[in-house]
Amino acid sequence: MDFKSKLLNNAVEEMSSLPGIGKRTALRLVLHLLNQSKEEVNQFSNSFTLLRENINFCKVCYNISDTETCLICQNENRDHSLICVVQDIRDILAIESTQQFKGYYHVLGGIISPMDGIGPDDLNIDELIVRSNNDKVKEIILALSATMEGDTTNFYLYRKLSDSNVKTSVIARGIGIGNELEYTDEITLGRSILHRSLFESSLSQ
Amino acid sequence: MDFKSKLLNNAVEEMSSLPGIGKRTALRLVLHLLNQSKEEVNQFSNSFTLLRENINFCKVCYNISDTETCLICQNENRDHSLICVVQDIRDILAIESTQQFKGYYHVLGGIISPMDGIGPDDLNIDELIVRSNNDKVKEIILALSATMEGDTTNFYLYRKLSDSNVKTSVIARGIGIGNELEYTDEITLGRSILHRSLFESSLSQ
Repeated sequence: MDFKSKLLNNAVEEMSSLPGIGKRTALRLVLHLLNQSKEEVNQFSNSFTLLRENINFCKVCYNISDTETCLICQNENRDHSLICVVQDIRDILAIESTQQFKGYYHVLGGIISPMDGIGPDDLNIDELIVRSNNDKVKEIILALSATMEGDTTNFYLYRKLSDSNVKTSVIARGIGIGNELEYTDEITLGRSILHRSLFESSLSQ
Repeated sequence: MDFKSKLLNNAVEEMSSLPGIGKRTALRLVLHLLNQSKEEVNQFSNSFTLLRENINFCKVCYNISDTETCLICQNENRDHSLICVVQDIRDILAIESTQQFKGYYHVLGGIISPMDGIGPDDLNIDELIVRSNNDKVKEIILALSATMEGDTTNFYLYRKLSDSNVKTSVIARGIGIGNELEYTDEITLGRSILHRSLFESSLSQ
């Protein structure tokens, strides 16, 4: 698409660089911005520049934070024996909203994915090993996606952590609560039979 | 959602102010921006500020333009007898891509919609009346959406233009090319029977 206006072309180009935003949607969004006042558009643009320039990552867990350590790491009342390893901060939000986890987090910043050129060195893995050597820490919970990349990363972390004195666990996989068997895919269903648990233990939750 | 970071909250809030972008998508897009370099984010943000601050609208047809009059209005080889009235510049792009129209355009900047608080005074209607009084102009083609608001605006423009010496026409409505009758809605099908045309005239296209 050529809009005969360099400024418009540029703005649409930039907007469509966002994941999942095509040229048509980008044009719609940019035209929406054009209908806003100059102050509003300035505020819109500045919010991203400010975020990018001033963002801090918690020096302990790599969660996004305005302060040096994030509010979760600052909270001394959480369970020091547990560290939950996640891919990015969205996962922290998801887990926090379940209110089922009271330990601390560690954000890897991605998962090992040779296809995307992401190796172990690009992730916050060494920092996790250091944290796991703290005597207070008893268990590392791997809460990564149930994909091939997630499994690869899980295995890599498991090997790396095997020298430490911590238990390594992964979050449960199986059929989702509320799902019907007939609509569950074969692999999930197969694994959930293989990894069945005693009925008594399911009552305790 | 509360991300415990004012900067992130702000950025997500601004991103989700775009039409069709919810909080979750906004967070995904903002995290994508965080993974870009500072320069890239600056370029991203600046493109919108620059567009909003420096954008010109063609003083003849209100198309978006970097120059005082847009490239279409500058083109003297188009058909001066035709003006096609559209809602916004996306419609110009759509019509131009059909290569079926060689006249000029007039962008209303919206359609009459009392529900959204948009009245005739908010649109570039007076300017259209002025243009229609030029002796060269013979026909005004109304190419607005086939919605109630579009119909209202069409009727309003028709009344306003009735004092001028121009023909007023609307683009054809009927079943879309390639569509099957059984999947066409009743109103469209009913109207397309009512407004049938002689078979000979359909051959000429």
